[in-house]
Amino acid sequence: MDLRGIYPAITTPFATDGSVALDDLTHNVRRYNTTDVAGYTVLGSTGEAVMLNPVETDAVLVTAKEAADASKRLIAGTGAESTAETIQRTRRAAELGYHAALVRTPHYYKPMYRPEVYIAYYRSVADASPIPVIPYSIPQFTGVTLDTPEILALAEHPNIIGIKDSSGKVERIEEVAAAASDFNVLVGSAALICSALAAGARGGILALASALPEKCVAVYDLYRRERWEQAKELQWMLAKASQAIVSECGIAGVKFVMDLRGYRGGLPRLPLQPLSEEQKTRLREMLMLLEPATARN
Amino acid sequence: MDLRGIYPAITTPFATDGSVALDDLTHNVRRYNTTDVAGYTVLGSTGEAVMLNPVETDAVLVTAKEAADASKRLIAGTGAESTAETIQRTRRAAELGYHAALVRTPHYYKPMYRPEVYIAYYRSVADASPIPVIPYSIPQFTGVTLDTPEILALAEHPNIIGIKDSSGKVERIEEVAAAASDFNVLVGSAALICSALAAGARGGILALASALPEKCVAVYDLYRRERWEQAKELQWMLAKASQAIVSECGIAGVKFVMDLRGYRGGLPRLPLQPLSEEQKTRLREMLMLLEPATARN
Amino acid sequence: MDLRGIYPAITTPFATDGSVALDDLTHNVRRYNTTDVAGYTVLGSTGEAVMLNPVETDAVLVTAKEAADASKRLIAGTGAESTAETIQRTRRAAELGYHAALVRTPHYYKPMYRPEVYIAYYRSVADASPIPVIPYSIPQFTGVTLDTPEILALAEHPNIIGIKDSSGKVERIEEVAAAASDFNVLVGSAALICSALAAGARGGILALASALPEKCVAVYDLYRRERWEQAKELQWMLAKASQAIVSECGIAGVKFVMDLRGYRGGLPRLPLQPLSEEQKTRLREMLMLLEPATARN
Amino acid sequence: MDLRGIYPAITTPFATDGSVALDDLTHNVRRYNTTDVAGYTVLGSTGEAVMLNPVETDAVLVTAKEAADASKRLIAGTGAESTAETIQRTRRAAELGYHAALVRTPHYYKPMYRPEVYIAYYRSVADASPIPVIPYSIPQFTGVTLDTPEILALAEHPNIIGIKDSSGKVERIEEVAAAASDFNVLVGSAALICSALAAGARGGILALASALPEKCVAVYDLYRRERWEQAKELQWMLAKASQAIVSECGIAGVKFVMDLRGYRGGLPRLPLQPLSEEQKTRLREMLMLLEPATARN
Repeated sequence: MDLRGIYPAITTPFATDGSVALDDLTHNVRRYNTTDVAGYTVLGSTGEAVMLNPVETDAVLVTAKEAADASKRLIAGTGAESTAETIQRTRRAAELGYHAALVRTPHYYKPMYRPEVYIAYYRSVADASPIPVIPYSIPQFTGVTLDTPEILALAEHPNIIGIKDSSGKVERIEEVAAAASDFNVLVGSAALICSALAAGARGGILALASALPEKCVAVYDLYRRERWEQAKELQWMLAKASQAIVSECGIAGVKFVMDLRGYRGGLPRLPLQPLSEEQKTRLREMLMLLEPATARN
Repeated sequence: MDLRGIYPAITTPFATDGSVALDDLTHNVRRYNTTDVAGYTVLGSTGEAVMLNPVETDAVLVTAKEAADASKRLIAGTGAESTAETIQRTRRAAELGYHAALVRTPHYYKPMYRPEVYIAYYRSVADASPIPVIPYSIPQFTGVTLDTPEILALAEHPNIIGIKDSSGKVERIEEVAAAASDFNVLVGSAALICSALAAGARGGILALASALPEKCVAVYDLYRRERWEQAKELQWMLAKASQAIVSECGIAGVKFVMDLRGYRGGLPRLPLQPLSEEQKTRLREMLMLLEPATARN
Repeated sequence: MDLRGIYPAITTPFATDGSVALDDLTHNVRRYNTTDVAGYTVLGSTGEAVMLNPVETDAVLVTAKEAADASKRLIAGTGAESTAETIQRTRRAAELGYHAALVRTPHYYKPMYRPEVYIAYYRSVADASPIPVIPYSIPQFTGVTLDTPEILALAEHPNIIGIKDSSGKVERIEEVAAAASDFNVLVGSAALICSALAAGARGGILALASALPEKCVAVYDLYRRERWEQAKELQWMLAKASQAIVSECGIAGVKFVMDLRGYRGGLPRLPLQPLSEEQKTRLREMLMLLEPATARN
Repeated sequence: MDLRGIYPAITTPFATDGSVALDDLTHNVRRYNTTDVAGYTVLGSTGEAVMLNPVETDAVLVTAKEAADASKRLIAGTGAESTAETIQRTRRAAELGYHAALVRTPHYYKPMYRPEVYIAYYRSVADASPIPVIPYSIPQFTGVTLDTPEILALAEHPNIIGIKDSSGKVERIEEVAAAASDFNVLVGSAALICSALAAGARGGILALASALPEKCVAVYDLYRRERWEQAKELQWMLAKASQAIVSECGIAGVKFVMDLRGYRGGLPRLPLQPLSEEQKTRLREMLMLLEPATARN
């Protein structure tokens, strides 16, 4: 499986009463279907997977699958703290027709989780999974990092087909890409699309692509087609957008820009906070720079 | 509510097929009933709360409550990542008869969780909870810390009655105890009982007390009765035990020593690893120093 | 050598033109001579050792030695980044009559400095030093920590007589004190005097004792004489003072309170900043609580 | 001043008696003169600046300047902990004919050094310096980071012409390059040449370029000439070399490979350790891959 391209890490919409808004999810996915994204990641960090109970989790997976165009690759976030629970969720995703599973590092008992524990963990999951597995390292949320030696050890497993590295450490992307030629290295920040491609990544799973899928795809395409100067110009704009929207405002920021652009964003679950008026103003101004026509509406 | 004393952070036993072993939990609690611990913390970090699904979570709370002697104070770990879920779990614990709720910091989206977010979070939970709330800060697991200013802000809420601080930072315990005289400051490490009491703590919620409740209570009592030299001698032994059992071997270490001492420990859930033979030997030797008669059996 | 007691980590005064004010140093030391501190640490972190050139370094050591009462123990900070330079400075301190050398961890090339490098480093220094050596671990400044195993390895060297641990981790103080009975474990925070003594420390090298030597000695003495409640009351006041003066305002704060109390504090070297007016007001208020008569002047 | 290109962060050679080997330094610089590096950084981190006394520091600056070809740009590392000392060293470098000063962040008192302190510090240095100033951020050694907002504030000063960012965070390189178009953003790792250029950097100051200047220049040139695939192939080899030589073996590794390639490397100063035989074997094998002819000798 070749995972080239841009995958939005899609959000989970909530109704005003706090329940999961499945219709809004359908609306969003159908709209993404009209873009050139390679597929979707459902229930990643941006999908607030850790905020959902098991019933909600299942409903989101079912709904996104149904709404997705058949041409889009579907990746389900299935990582839990226990090995058994992760395997169970992964099997369910396979049953529902997802093409691959994104499995974040378990992390609560981090002082006990040495690299060899992670290697054993991912091998167990990959052995038990009917679909390919993609380990997911996001130290800013989990406090743990998958480093090059353990990623390369995992790359030898036939059912582990790539890595999502959201650490921002391009050096690691390069080390892994250089050593594991058929492995799908995916970057986790829209600010790093060009740098990561230069280092050997194949694509990205991006929060920002939930709000600005066309822009993220455009950077990717310009770079692929060797229009370097144009790629860099647009990349610089996306870096600013990623900083303002994702780094400073988090999921609430992504959802707010989605609302501005005709998606159904809404609010994240508490304790994730809604945006302040200043933050909203700043994001509107950011969007004005990127996409004047939309922002004016 | 005055939480003076030692509270084991009790473990959750699993059967060999991986399911929760409720009978073993009953056995353990009944045996703790015969000790002088002040009560129990159920579903804390040592209770592998993050490894359990909702059905298992409820069964553990029900079973521990039924087995506990009426004289023991019962604290339920009810923290989840979302505010709504935490409130729901806390209400359920109250319904079951728990006396207080221990609520760890939500932490997955930590770059978004500033101190004021934690203050708002805990106030919402405390407002909605029928039973008193105890915030729980354990940076080595969560990557986030509740620091003195936010703890003192929370101490003003009438339904927030204490703090479990497992950071090991005695300076913070002292700052909080000095500024909030009726607040229950509880330490999270058996190695720090004397130091924490010297700094103003009222007691501890301790993983080690699941394996060695009598020793932990003994240090506490010696210190309270101003037998300082004896307290220090025993404290030093407990510090070594805590290092060997809890810091180096984690929950698997606590459970193994429980097995040696007639409790039903068993194995933690994967990816927490079973002990190696070297680790077991080291723990047997440690127990030989602390409790020669038991270890010889 | 038994290092029981309280040692101010004395400051280095600067004249308004930025040069070292040796007369002011003499003034301060003579005044400390009238207190019950056990001795002085010259050119520790609070002494701005890293801000001085070699000529200034030597002048400070000479001046402090000359001003110190013969009854006071003298400890010189002699740590540099290179082993050879540390040895040279340590020998010079011995030649000048210092009783012991406080040697902070080299730290610039920290990714290369594994525990065994520190063990080899301190052994080399101790082998070459005519006076006893005290390793000094202050992770908040250096980014590196001496942990229990390496401290215990060093404790076996006949010319390494203690450790100054400024990490704030009382658990480590306890582990070391429990395992190395003749070793001088010294704490680095005035907020932790009682807790550290409860854990087995013998005393402290304290920035706050440069500004408030009598108070620090008083807590120490009350604890030693088993007047626990009084010790704790005063300890709590010192914890607040330490937080406000040392943690929030740093060396500038210590020097400002020295000025208020008749010592010659002055300003630290840039880029350490002078206090704002708000900070000064806050420290005056703090002193009013601790020592109303002085603060009123 | 436009700092495009590759600058080796040159090493300081020591004789077997530990003294600075100025002849060896001359030998090395003359040899670098025959390569296409843009210039030299003298007394950076790789130059063991923190290991030298003032007399040695001056001798190294004098010697490197004399040996350098007039076509090469000369950058002197002049950062010290105190503002006054940094200014004095910077002026001396200017007097000796250096073209720019590389000034690492002061860091010992890091809890006191907020971003505004760094801004004030660098402005003072730049105001007083006869030559342009380049702030230098290397968190893995100093424990502090210059982040985008403070870098952009400094970029407005007419005598601050660039930044050396050794954090490995390409996202920051991109943010700065995107916002400050005439600013010289220089990367600090040979593994990131292509990624950093893709993000908008102008070149690099590289430890690895002391051992392998031609390879580093080759990657840079291939990228500049838009021969992307060749650039990436060679970049991948350099990433491995950088990991094995610089990350794993540090300055000792750089110096060892210099020895293998006809430079005069020698040993770093203690406590930096010499390489083990295994490390030497690994580096010889690495060189065999990169440069078979040299390695065979």
